Amino acid sequence: MAKHIVYHIPVCPFSQRLEILLALRGQRDAVEFRVVDITKPRDPELLAKTRGTTALPVLETSDGRILKESLVILRYLDEALEGRALRRADPVEHAIESMLIAREGPFTMAGYLFVMNQDRNQRDAHRDKVLALYRDINDFLVDQNPDGPYLFDDFGLAETVFTPVFKRFWFLEYYEDFTLPAEGGYDRVRQWRDACMAHPATGQVTQEEIVKLYYDYALGAGNGALPAGRAVSSFAIQPKWQDRPMPPRDKYAGSASDHALGLAS
Amino acid sequence: MAKHIVYHIPVCPFSQRLEILLALRGQRDAVEFRVVDITKPRDPELLAKTRGTTALPVLETSDGRILKESLVILRYLDEALEGRALRRADPVEHAIESMLIAREGPFTMAGYLFVMNQDRNQRDAHRDKVLALYRDINDFLVDQNPDGPYLFDDFGLAETVFTPVFKRFWFLEYYEDFTLPAEGGYDRVRQWRDACMAHPATGQVTQEEIVKLYYDYALGAGNGALPAGRAVSSFAIQPKWQDRPMPPRDKYAGSASDHALGLAS
Repeated sequence: MAKHIVYHIPVCPFSQRLEILLALRGQRDAVEFRVVDITKPRDPELLAKTRGTTALPVLETSDGRILKESLVILRYLDEALEGRALRRADPVEHAIESMLIAREGPFTMAGYLFVMNQDRNQRDAHRDKVLALYRDINDFLVDQNPDGPYLFDDFGLAETVFTPVFKRFWFLEYYEDFTLPAEGGYDRVRQWRDACMAHPATGQVTQEEIVKLYYDYALGAGNGALPAGRAVSSFAIQPKWQDRPMPPRDKYAGSASDHALGLAS
Repeated sequence: MAKHIVYHIPVCPFSQRLEILLALRGQRDAVEFRVVDITKPRDPELLAKTRGTTALPVLETSDGRILKESLVILRYLDEALEGRALRRADPVEHAIESMLIAREGPFTMAGYLFVMNQDRNQRDAHRDKVLALYRDINDFLVDQNPDGPYLFDDFGLAETVFTPVFKRFWFLEYYEDFTLPAEGGYDRVRQWRDACMAHPATGQVTQEEIVKLYYDYALGAGNGALPAGRAVSSFAIQPKWQDRPMPPRDKYAGSASDHALGLAS
């Protein structure tokens, strides 16, 4: 069939899960990825296709239809690609993986609100909220498959959904010193997370890349917005993140300069 | 196959959509419904099955597995029941109905927050939020199927998801005088809503029942909680709603008495 096109931000977790699916299905070439630079005004042609919305990723089918919403696109590709789907074939098992996938939205939201928080006094409240969601996932995994490491016998649809978020949460480790406590009900979710993050299909991003690109999020500026005193976004494609120094870890001290961040070209 | 069991609150929209699905699929008898009275302490046996959570509906499969989340259960039943599924068979069309279904959560939330709001000064803000979500659905329907009335050629999965919510929003009409404006981009969603609500598979509840049972929500008390000065919930199964008078429409005036509401047995 003619190729589908995905318009995406390569570092975005909602795009990485599509790449993981394609890797697992052995069909990296079934989709053409086109990079969108969120630090620049959106291309009017793409904006016309999406009817004014700017959220990414967006999939344009080979016959020109537009699909939005990362999970809708993921499930669509899993169903439409030739060969055996990644989703569990058994309806009950698929419902169980869908119950876990339903937890991803609030989990992702809590982590992003934590990294973007600018009030030192709210740190503990954000941390507690993220930890409560980890414990809930822990209990679900203990209930469904106590031995692990995955929800079922192999890396599947739920792992594809969550792994990019676990990798984004490197920004919490770096900017908030966040780690899962050794005690208190996190062992099973830690085992799951570690197995997900180590899986060979999930190596599209590195800790260094996430920490550098998401620096502006840690200052409260999301989606390519600029923190005060800065002229270049940490999400800029040039200068390359590989050529920039690691940003300062103390997010509450205010922004480093474009120059100090290696962003002044 | 042995019967699945659904534990539910009959008036709950998240349960009604399961009943609509079964009606459309001609399989009302494939599931046994067991009524849970949310105004009483939860049965310990059910609480053990759900591992402590109280949200309903819950489905217990014929071999004793527990599924939660209304949309997960709905999609599970649609896939597991014998015969032709309600979901669109074509993957792209299924993705399109899933994009509409993804709008239901925020839509339902906005309507419930509006009916539960107790601050007169916030009424316009709630109304504007609900209207913005209606306009978004309107635009989606215009984009996908301008002539209507449904998203595709017949009442389908998206209609099954939304219709119970449209019927619950009778509480906005009654307690907030909420109606869709004649102008401003609501024609297509009005056509859709009216067709959904008139469909013969969706008659499980009436306007009178919703208005009477959700009175406590209009006073800010959800899930069987009691408003100040009251001893019996409007969600009580006895006395029957059919035997009670219509509640007062001015929700901002405080609660009518159990006696005036026909709740004193």
